[in-house]
Amino acid sequence: MRIGIVTKHDLVAARDTLASLEAWLHARGTAVVWAPEAAALLPAPPAVVRTREALAAEVDLVVVLGGDGTLLATAGLIARSGRDVPILAVNFGSLGFLTEITRPELQSALAEVLDGRFTLDERMMLTARTRRAGHTDGDVPVLNDVVFTRTALSRIIDLAVSVGDQFVTRVKADGLIVASPTGSTAYNLAAGGPIVHPAMAAFVLTPIAPHTLSNRPIVVPAEREVHVVVSADNGGAEVYVTFDGQSGFPLAAGDSVAIGRAPRTVRLVRATSRTYFEVLRQKLKWGER
Amino acid sequence: MRIGIVTKHDLVAARDTLASLEAWLHARGTAVVWAPEAAALLPAPPAVVRTREALAAEVDLVVVLGGDGTLLATAGLIARSGRDVPILAVNFGSLGFLTEITRPELQSALAEVLDGRFTLDERMMLTARTRRAGHTDGDVPVLNDVVFTRTALSRIIDLAVSVGDQFVTRVKADGLIVASPTGSTAYNLAAGGPIVHPAMAAFVLTPIAPHTLSNRPIVVPAEREVHVVVSADNGGAEVYVTFDGQSGFPLAAGDSVAIGRAPRTVRLVRATSRTYFEVLRQKLKWGER
Amino acid sequence: MRIGIVTKHDLVAARDTLASLEAWLHARGTAVVWAPEAAALLPAPPAVVRTREALAAEVDLVVVLGGDGTLLATAGLIARSGRDVPILAVNFGSLGFLTEITRPELQSALAEVLDGRFTLDERMMLTARTRRAGHTDGDVPVLNDVVFTRTALSRIIDLAVSVGDQFVTRVKADGLIVASPTGSTAYNLAAGGPIVHPAMAAFVLTPIAPHTLSNRPIVVPAEREVHVVVSADNGGAEVYVTFDGQSGFPLAAGDSVAIGRAPRTVRLVRATSRTYFEVLRQKLKWGER
Amino acid sequence: MRIGIVTKHDLVAARDTLASLEAWLHARGTAVVWAPEAAALLPAPPAVVRTREALAAEVDLVVVLGGDGTLLATAGLIARSGRDVPILAVNFGSLGFLTEITRPELQSALAEVLDGRFTLDERMMLTARTRRAGHTDGDVPVLNDVVFTRTALSRIIDLAVSVGDQFVTRVKADGLIVASPTGSTAYNLAAGGPIVHPAMAAFVLTPIAPHTLSNRPIVVPAEREVHVVVSADNGGAEVYVTFDGQSGFPLAAGDSVAIGRAPRTVRLVRATSRTYFEVLRQKLKWGER
Repeated sequence: MRIGIVTKHDLVAARDTLASLEAWLHARGTAVVWAPEAAALLPAPPAVVRTREALAAEVDLVVVLGGDGTLLATAGLIARSGRDVPILAVNFGSLGFLTEITRPELQSALAEVLDGRFTLDERMMLTARTRRAGHTDGDVPVLNDVVFTRTALSRIIDLAVSVGDQFVTRVKADGLIVASPTGSTAYNLAAGGPIVHPAMAAFVLTPIAPHTLSNRPIVVPAEREVHVVVSADNGGAEVYVTFDGQSGFPLAAGDSVAIGRAPRTVRLVRATSRTYFEVLRQKLKWGER
Repeated sequence: MRIGIVTKHDLVAARDTLASLEAWLHARGTAVVWAPEAAALLPAPPAVVRTREALAAEVDLVVVLGGDGTLLATAGLIARSGRDVPILAVNFGSLGFLTEITRPELQSALAEVLDGRFTLDERMMLTARTRRAGHTDGDVPVLNDVVFTRTALSRIIDLAVSVGDQFVTRVKADGLIVASPTGSTAYNLAAGGPIVHPAMAAFVLTPIAPHTLSNRPIVVPAEREVHVVVSADNGGAEVYVTFDGQSGFPLAAGDSVAIGRAPRTVRLVRATSRTYFEVLRQKLKWGER
Repeated sequence: MRIGIVTKHDLVAARDTLASLEAWLHARGTAVVWAPEAAALLPAPPAVVRTREALAAEVDLVVVLGGDGTLLATAGLIARSGRDVPILAVNFGSLGFLTEITRPELQSALAEVLDGRFTLDERMMLTARTRRAGHTDGDVPVLNDVVFTRTALSRIIDLAVSVGDQFVTRVKADGLIVASPTGSTAYNLAAGGPIVHPAMAAFVLTPIAPHTLSNRPIVVPAEREVHVVVSADNGGAEVYVTFDGQSGFPLAAGDSVAIGRAPRTVRLVRATSRTYFEVLRQKLKWGER
Repeated sequence: MRIGIVTKHDLVAARDTLASLEAWLHARGTAVVWAPEAAALLPAPPAVVRTREALAAEVDLVVVLGGDGTLLATAGLIARSGRDVPILAVNFGSLGFLTEITRPELQSALAEVLDGRFTLDERMMLTARTRRAGHTDGDVPVLNDVVFTRTALSRIIDLAVSVGDQFVTRVKADGLIVASPTGSTAYNLAAGGPIVHPAMAAFVLTPIAPHTLSNRPIVVPAEREVHVVVSADNGGAEVYVTFDGQSGFPLAAGDSVAIGRAPRTVRLVRATSRTYFEVLRQKLKWGER
């Protein structure tokens, strides 16, 4: 079993964790592949360093140290590699709905994985296909959300939304979030969207600051493709689409993005004792007064 | 094919519609069974009058004239009868997400049904089982929602909510709505919950005016039973549970309600040309400025 | 200077605080008047015990030990007495926007008051006058809010709201909150209303779960009287009005409540170092992630 | 009395209205000054054409034909001119909370003004002073709102907000709106803020999609200056500030904007019969079901 190690860029807070992780894996005789950002944080250069892309195509497990952003980027790389590599994510960020394993839990969690005792949490992914200026881009795998937003100087954007072959509505708003259940606890929550349990096969469509006050978040089955078109009379406002907050580009009137369920899931190693709702309660401080 | 006619009590606005409906069905030679409230609105007593319960157990189609309340009551009766009788609902109420067929459309819609040309919209139902004072009540079929609320003089109630065998959270609020996708556009919408597409097998859990400001609506799979218990330290506040707004009773500390997916669906005759989203746009005035 | 001591009923958690408070005041030679609930918590019966009403009419300062409910009741009594007695409120409840002085701060805060060094926080009060069945009740002083609600079995109430001599709208909802700035951080916040700074002379009108999704909280000048009438076609639903959550009664169709600015303010002794926003940040956990 | 005419750029829908307005004013012998965009819509060049700035400094009344945007720009020009020129605004836009006079009402409204019979609606304005890179910009007059937003590619901005000399909170969000009562029914409403009656002297601080779910809109007295500083650890995200959606620029970490009450109000000619709440009911469709 080969383990790949990926970290957030320049994550100096992870130096000690990485050094002891290297020693611990070496003692166990486990083969390790280091991404460049992770290797740069070690006291001495490790034997095997690969780009993140190459790493995703080689290893049997990826350990991610960082925040949700690093996890989202890694999930995208694994999805593109077409392989079913599980991810063990350790939280070095501030919120961490996804990277729920804490630093002190890392070694015991990893030991359980290496011994074959662990639970995988499978999360559905989205796939986004953009058609712009007459051309169709390649599919982009997305774990959390596809977000359509205005730029700072345009006050409103105008999108036409369909689900399956049925027109839903025109959305005149700051933007629109199309989120997976996993993404429902990310940006979607700040915009007023509901929490959707990750066992559901669903998309959440949440308008951001809609001008029509009765516009509400809608949860639709993931079997139906969501289609978002920039309206022809968008009034010259600039629209951006972003994927998991990692990449994005501007769209023009008539451009469209089709969002469907990805053929592959992302597989997250779970800390065995913590339920989904326990993480919610802790992160959203439901227990406290 | 026998048709049952059910109306809202004392719906004088339906008199003309009922009289011409009776004549039209008589001319077609269709057998008709009248519920007492419907019969009372006819110019002369009809041949066959049955209680709503008996009617639900006899006919092959129920025509409902009224608002969503009359439909909810009828759906409950059919569910209790254990039969799969479709409902054709004509809107005489103010909102009518469910009773989407308008009065002018009644005869043509009914003609299509009698000719065997129509679409059925199947909607999942909930089933609620209450355990109180050590006894378990019989299952109550519910189409829209099970609602837990405080009384006017108690400011807050305290409920413990679980999904499947996992504890979700304590809800300290005016109340809690457990809605089906169909019920998501009813009371749930007023309380800030999301719209959930009726093709989904899901429950929506929406707190009403929760004291913990980060409490949010949660959408969970209908395969998992929702369990709501009145907390022991509810502080003497009175809690009421209501089913589809049609029936209800008080609960005491320790009492609980288990809400699952009902074994049967309700089957609504659709006006063929109107999509789910078209009804949403019209009712919520999304199209207009 | 005579000090009155009022506590929440049966507040056993305050026993030690009360005993040392009694000794400390005795050592200073300060005259003390005890409300019956406070006297009952002392090791031995104190010399001077008065009903809360009599106490409010006699003393120069009231020390309240309890939650916001005890403070609201005391503020009402002082307002009825027509005197300008300041309140020093110590938090024994769970939230305590108003009772912001903590137990360890009690003696030093009280020492400052007795030495004449302290800041008073003046808060406007409301006054509510109910007209029902042709009669007009006496004015009720209110610190937080006048709340109109439905009962558990009626789904919706229908109110006609005016401000000054201008009709605002019909509210079809679970209820309506008319809050003072002080009350804006109480029930109003749970129902989705805004925070209104206590230096403002304003009423907040917040509908609870309104059926018209574009109904929004409205902030109006306290110089204009708010008038709420139970609509004639309220559909037989029962409406309750409550004052500060302390008292209330049912209203019938045609009954009305006029809410204006009270002639007197309530005067709260402030812990000098804490700003209004500091209390907000702490209570609403804005600082934390 | 000299009348200035200002229109939205290229407002061809106003051609007929302008032509008959010109003839009507000529027949009355009223002196008229045309802004270039208005003059361009007339069949023949009018005698007196001035830039908008020069026009604002010369005339006794400005007639604005357009949407809220044109009115906001005109209000800004008049405020900069230091004069108290009233505005009669005719609605050619889609929503028009401010431009409430309809086209058919224009001539009768104008006749009343010329005869000296009319009501002025005085609205408070904001004034915004930006300090960036060590320099302080000139004051910008604002009628609706000062808005701080992120750009499309940065997910969150971090602002430190104070009111008077008291720190309120850090806002981590898509943005922050500081609105006047007049602006409370504009962008503020889409972002979830309350309606604030225009007779109030207040600012509304509404976060846009805040990450801290308990962050809520706050209404503060207009006597206290609102101070917004871009946090030092804003993480490199780009922040834009815009004034009435008409102008704006990027801010860097440490830059700040101070927002106070402007010394002058804007004076709008009212159609006499319509109350503030009547406009609200109509625009927000409160009356309808």
